[in-house]
Amino acid sequence: MKIIDNGTVTSPQGFLAAGIVAGLKRSGSPDMALLMSTVPCQFAAGFTVNRMAAAPVQYCRAVCDRAKTVRAVIINSGNANACTGAKGLQNATEMAARTAQCLRIEADEVLVSSTGRIGIQMPMEKILNGIGLAAQSLSTDGGQNAAAAIMTTDTKKKSVAVQTQIDGKTVTIGAMAKGSGMIAPHMEVAGPHATMLAYITTDANVDGPYLNGCLKRVLERSFNRISVDGDMSTNDTVIVLANGLAGNSPIRPRTAAARRFEEALTHVAATLARMMVLDGEGATKFVEVQVHGAKNNKEARQAAAAIANSLLCKTAWFGQDPNWGRIIDAVGYSGVQVIPDRVALNYDDVAVVRGGMDAGADLRAMEAVLKKPEFVVRVDLGIGTGSYTYWTCDLSYDYVKINADYRT
Amino acid sequence: MKIIDNGTVTSPQGFLAAGIVAGLKRSGSPDMALLMSTVPCQFAAGFTVNRMAAAPVQYCRAVCDRAKTVRAVIINSGNANACTGAKGLQNATEMAARTAQCLRIEADEVLVSSTGRIGIQMPMEKILNGIGLAAQSLSTDGGQNAAAAIMTTDTKKKSVAVQTQIDGKTVTIGAMAKGSGMIAPHMEVAGPHATMLAYITTDANVDGPYLNGCLKRVLERSFNRISVDGDMSTNDTVIVLANGLAGNSPIRPRTAAARRFEEALTHVAATLARMMVLDGEGATKFVEVQVHGAKNNKEARQAAAAIANSLLCKTAWFGQDPNWGRIIDAVGYSGVQVIPDRVALNYDDVAVVRGGMDAGADLRAMEAVLKKPEFVVRVDLGIGTGSYTYWTCDLSYDYVKINADYRT
Repeated sequence: MKIIDNGTVTSPQGFLAAGIVAGLKRSGSPDMALLMSTVPCQFAAGFTVNRMAAAPVQYCRAVCDRAKTVRAVIINSGNANACTGAKGLQNATEMAARTAQCLRIEADEVLVSSTGRIGIQMPMEKILNGIGLAAQSLSTDGGQNAAAAIMTTDTKKKSVAVQTQIDGKTVTIGAMAKGSGMIAPHMEVAGPHATMLAYITTDANVDGPYLNGCLKRVLERSFNRISVDGDMSTNDTVIVLANGLAGNSPIRPRTAAARRFEEALTHVAATLARMMVLDGEGATKFVEVQVHGAKNNKEARQAAAAIANSLLCKTAWFGQDPNWGRIIDAVGYSGVQVIPDRVALNYDDVAVVRGGMDAGADLRAMEAVLKKPEFVVRVDLGIGTGSYTYWTCDLSYDYVKINADYRT
Repeated sequence: MKIIDNGTVTSPQGFLAAGIVAGLKRSGSPDMALLMSTVPCQFAAGFTVNRMAAAPVQYCRAVCDRAKTVRAVIINSGNANACTGAKGLQNATEMAARTAQCLRIEADEVLVSSTGRIGIQMPMEKILNGIGLAAQSLSTDGGQNAAAAIMTTDTKKKSVAVQTQIDGKTVTIGAMAKGSGMIAPHMEVAGPHATMLAYITTDANVDGPYLNGCLKRVLERSFNRISVDGDMSTNDTVIVLANGLAGNSPIRPRTAAARRFEEALTHVAATLARMMVLDGEGATKFVEVQVHGAKNNKEARQAAAAIANSLLCKTAWFGQDPNWGRIIDAVGYSGVQVIPDRVALNYDDVAVVRGGMDAGADLRAMEAVLKKPEFVVRVDLGIGTGSYTYWTCDLSYDYVKINADYRT
């Protein structure tokens, strides 16, 4: 597997993208992206389990239920089209129809995503004009523009691409994402079925049902294990488009080709997920929370999530304070099985807690870890074989500033 | 029911209290409180459900299992005696024994509480000397000193007392509490069975088992419905001592006397719970989150807790931003049954969301509510009859400052 320098969604063969200004943001920044394949794509998608799912999520779920292939995704930032009722759904439908018209494809070949403020109807005149402009701006090197146009409170564009050899052919996977706040995605692949948005393109020849199963596993090792603020969005969406132009034989489950493809897809998704946490609103630290020795993987996840979302842990990390009592406290209230005198905790390689008590670590050694921009908090419950890894960030003044001041 | 000006735990007959400096805090502030009744007390207690419960909590649970009456509570701040293993439990036991010795009562008549930093063994020489000093300092007007000595990050002492007439006698209930951070208590009365600590004294003549049932109901209407930061402590404790000196006939369940007593006890507990939220670390707003129309009370609680603990909601409140999308988003991910187009939301009397969508409220009217120091966020799910009320606060720069800088 080779990482492509400055790789984007347009790195794989046959993908075009655009990022333009439709006028949805006061700032005048780019706010609309269009992604298109020159040929029909097998696809898989995951959407938020939030029960107030936004109109574009509802729309996409329906397309996923009825469409065999898709070719394009239209995405706007600046307005989430969430809590907008029947009119919102009608507007999402109209976005797909207009995109299809501009691209001379079928409406059911278009997926729709939105991100931004909740509860305001979409300014459809701007949206429809923007779609026309985006369609005119499509190009094979439009990936970076598209990545810029989907940003909201993000401070950095998030793109990546890798290449791998499958069946003697070079297969490329590219991707872009946005996400900085309202990040605690839990997405389910369904039907075939955070605000995080992620779009993955590939020229691999992949069977649709296989791609679904593959995405499901990949989500658990990437987007579904991150949290910035514990707030799961109404709009979280991840979409994978596979157009087959690499010319490999179709990838089938449980083959060397499948393993190689899944490894590359996991790398791409995990890279974007890490980028989101690193660019988490106000974040100054990337913290990997590992829980091992839990009763089962589900309990390991539950304990890791409690630590990752604890305000007291997150503020201690911001303060570079090795106050491990807050971590053990979070484990204690997470609801998982705990035998207090078996609990162990490490900061990176420093043994901090053993037998549920202070392991006598040198304060300076602990502080040296907490001062790093990235470190691992490793908890071992000493009960079973369940384990889970969560990626999170600290909670800083800037998080409060960004979210107390944010008004679209 | 009459509220007593500057009432404290020593307002009821036959209670003495003290607050002294044992030397546990670097600041030199008072750090040890002692509470005692001149005669044996019926009692009830609730403790954290955190599975890493601190040594004093473990100790008290055992006393609750075997003791019929108690007479005293020894409390220290500055050290939580949590994650301290067998030695911690031995130290809690020694605190009770020393207190009993100084007061010439039995060890099993003494309950023990600690609050402060987790994971450090108690400095027992200071503790034991402090107990001696506290015993010498007991007085019938020591309530305010005791309330001061149990504070950690609290900025205000928390005491209250009320009087009511029962069976022709004047019954007094007094109470004190501490709690400002690590506040999301869930306590269960057990056996007979935050960091919040609350101590309620009364001269009412009350049957022990009745008092247990009564406390269980009162907890659900007071301490168990508050959250500052969502972090449930290892040390949360509430203790009610009833010494019977008011001379009323024993209060029995389902009588007018029981209703009056429970009303007064609820008032005292709810007053302290509100005080904790008002004094929540860095808090500038008191927010009452009401959820109505849920499938059942449990789901109403779950949705209310999601809103109350959402970082995005809490920072929006700090920013006085009527960004209701964040509240509806939290309802959506809380896991409760939601039918999007039935969801309604009010800020105080202002209708903000109807049918899951913007109700067209005047921005100035919404902002006027958000600018108030206290307001109600009322969600109606429109499904069933379940309802729940939660008390929470906003999340400010000062919350981050206090918790990133806090080192004992």
